[in-house]
Amino acid sequence: MGKTKRQMNLNVFIMNAGHHEAAWRRTDTQAERITDIRYFQRLAEIAEQAKFDSLFLADILAVGKNVQHGVSSFGLEPFTLLSALAAVTERIGLIGTVSTTYNEPFHVARKFASLDHISQGRAGWNIVTSGNEIEAGNFGREGHLEHRKRYERAREFLEVAKGLWDSFEEDAIIIDRDTGQFTDSTKVHALNHAGPHFRVKGPLNVPRSPQGYPVLVQAGSSEDGKEFAAEHAEAIFTAQQTLEEAQSFYSDVKSRLAKYGRHPDELKILPGICTIIGATESEAKEKEQELNELTIPAYGLNQLSSMLKVDLSGLPLDGPLPELPNIEAINGNKSRFQLVVDLARRDNLTIRQLIHRLAGGRGHRTFAGTAVQVADQLEEWFTQGGSDGFNVMPPYLPGGLEDFAAQVVPELQRRGLFRTEYAGRTLREHYGLKRPVNPYAARPLVSRLAGC
Amino acid sequence: MGKTKRQMNLNVFIMNAGHHEAAWRRTDTQAERITDIRYFQRLAEIAEQAKFDSLFLADILAVGKNVQHGVSSFGLEPFTLLSALAAVTERIGLIGTVSTTYNEPFHVARKFASLDHISQGRAGWNIVTSGNEIEAGNFGREGHLEHRKRYERAREFLEVAKGLWDSFEEDAIIIDRDTGQFTDSTKVHALNHAGPHFRVKGPLNVPRSPQGYPVLVQAGSSEDGKEFAAEHAEAIFTAQQTLEEAQSFYSDVKSRLAKYGRHPDELKILPGICTIIGATESEAKEKEQELNELTIPAYGLNQLSSMLKVDLSGLPLDGPLPELPNIEAINGNKSRFQLVVDLARRDNLTIRQLIHRLAGGRGHRTFAGTAVQVADQLEEWFTQGGSDGFNVMPPYLPGGLEDFAAQVVPELQRRGLFRTEYAGRTLREHYGLKRPVNPYAARPLVSRLAGC
Repeated sequence: MGKTKRQMNLNVFIMNAGHHEAAWRRTDTQAERITDIRYFQRLAEIAEQAKFDSLFLADILAVGKNVQHGVSSFGLEPFTLLSALAAVTERIGLIGTVSTTYNEPFHVARKFASLDHISQGRAGWNIVTSGNEIEAGNFGREGHLEHRKRYERAREFLEVAKGLWDSFEEDAIIIDRDTGQFTDSTKVHALNHAGPHFRVKGPLNVPRSPQGYPVLVQAGSSEDGKEFAAEHAEAIFTAQQTLEEAQSFYSDVKSRLAKYGRHPDELKILPGICTIIGATESEAKEKEQELNELTIPAYGLNQLSSMLKVDLSGLPLDGPLPELPNIEAINGNKSRFQLVVDLARRDNLTIRQLIHRLAGGRGHRTFAGTAVQVADQLEEWFTQGGSDGFNVMPPYLPGGLEDFAAQVVPELQRRGLFRTEYAGRTLREHYGLKRPVNPYAARPLVSRLAGC
Repeated sequence: MGKTKRQMNLNVFIMNAGHHEAAWRRTDTQAERITDIRYFQRLAEIAEQAKFDSLFLADILAVGKNVQHGVSSFGLEPFTLLSALAAVTERIGLIGTVSTTYNEPFHVARKFASLDHISQGRAGWNIVTSGNEIEAGNFGREGHLEHRKRYERAREFLEVAKGLWDSFEEDAIIIDRDTGQFTDSTKVHALNHAGPHFRVKGPLNVPRSPQGYPVLVQAGSSEDGKEFAAEHAEAIFTAQQTLEEAQSFYSDVKSRLAKYGRHPDELKILPGICTIIGATESEAKEKEQELNELTIPAYGLNQLSSMLKVDLSGLPLDGPLPELPNIEAINGNKSRFQLVVDLARRDNLTIRQLIHRLAGGRGHRTFAGTAVQVADQLEEWFTQGGSDGFNVMPPYLPGGLEDFAAQVVPELQRRGLFRTEYAGRTLREHYGLKRPVNPYAARPLVSRLAGC
């Protein structure tokens, strides 16, 4: 029975000193080591020992305004970091964020195919369209591409990437030393893509990788984002504050898959949760309180101004939010904007209270309690149609991850809700996802011989 | 005396199954493992144990025409591979090729800064402008950018990259937990570059890396290439067939540095050499002969056609080269074109003979002999004003590298011509290069306070 019980997928979202914006001020964090690969190796090791499905690195292509008081907007380039981690881990999936707005599909397809080879099938791509106008200035763009346009580009980008990943059929490499045939060139395919955003001839210069495609992840929860996820994504990182919101998001997104000929299980929904764990509930709440007291108001105000696209500086911290723009006017992270507005209204929060509520997870749910209480929460969401697993966001590192690994994971395992050993080798196997079939290989032999 | 004797720098140029185009047909090569990171880890380990300064990976952004009989134009993406190697090596420098024609400076500056952190100061960038028209088709370009334009773009690209690497002063990161100051924001600098090819605001989102800048390497030997190298490069990979050519190139390039305010020692000149090593001279020559007999004429013809920008297919292999275009008409690797033409004329070679002469090093010098003879050759070039060291190109792997490491390196060490231990930690230290001073930090305090 334990074997057939549905189990959750757990991803750990690693961010420098931790997700809480004041994490680095705790003396037990290692903010001095954010450019030290051994620091990240140790975090990956902890997560792998706990049998996490994957670890994930976000990305932003610019230094934010908050450089003075925070550490979230600079550090190592995530893809370079993931590749270094691939060399020193064996089982855990490695998911990196790469923007479709500021990159070329040939480069991106190529590096994910390489990472998939290097990690022996553990690569995942969190596809983002870049919601932040300051990134445009680093790539010669005057302004920020409009929301819908970014998704159009993302769709075509992904179509090109998939085409490139199909360049080499599985058995294209022969290596026949006697005849001198290295490759069966009839099994290496050009793409000749010509679309509104890209013209790419191909073929990709990387042989078919262990997973075929990296696991495709998506993190936007706007209408455009949900539709994109339903069509293409295999996992989705999302921010939901309550079980009701999570259920509604879950059924909404899952119901959209059918029209793309996909089964609901082909997309795993993983809400983020920032877990503050204590030996007792009151210890956990105190820890949360201490972290919130370490926040710098100017930092939180900047973050909040950026999420709400309104300059809040100068407003009284203990007063309410001002008049806000309409969501239609938001050309950034639309769903995060809505979430923050809803949260402030629902609980009638002052600006300071809102900053504290957002300090741990920037809109992702924060929960402080014992390991058993955390496990209860996860179980409830997982069994009540709110999620397929979670995007675990340790508030501070390495401690917050160590606590989760040592206390919450064993509790979930005791309940039969999480694996005790990796069953598979690849990230697709961890997530229970199909390996894509190469469309060239899928053609019947007759049409292949006819060159169709 | 041994301590002060001038020593050579040795780079190993790693290419899939080896540099000889027929290497993969030898049964002792591991062509099956060209997407296996452990294969490259092992090669890096051999090179590091032999105290090589660095290992180098070339790059091309397209699958060549020769996919059927060769393995040189596909495999792992080099930067992803280097980052994975950084995690499992400790001393050897890691040099990767990245094109300035098909990339954005923000991405490139960022990933080299990250690699430099991850490797603790061992990153090097081989700056290329992409000489191959088939690459254009993978990036939406109809045609190939003209030779001089590519170098103009490269100059501006490098100016932007250097500006970005200077974004964070050395002491910009404070991490004062008491006051909540993570960064001294007066020491993080925007760039606001606006030029004909790029507009980049900055700052870079990576703190200053151990080497300041990666070691800057260049490999083109045309007039544009030599001038670019004299202005910017700290090491140059070059192809020279004879000592006289090497001496002439060496003095030509070194003499160009003064006008950029640079000392000749700030640029290391490393001609390529493909070494075929045997226990006796005749064994080495036989090995060379065997490798040449394994070449596939169609493959060599394709390679030669591509270097000479002329379609040679259908011409008799045992006849002479046809009429060739003038070098002014070559929009690719101009210096390689000239080298091949000179080689064919000087030795009055048939097409087949020329293919064999190019099979080992594609224009780089090939030398077959005993380890002592190889060391003699290297010593002669090094002491007679032909080079500062060498770009060692093993004809087949891992054997060709093992032979060089086990036989030639100890011979060079016995002669006091090569280190027996790494003296430094960073690639700059291995090559004896200065660490660049951050221009912001170099300003006197008074002008800094005045905000100049």
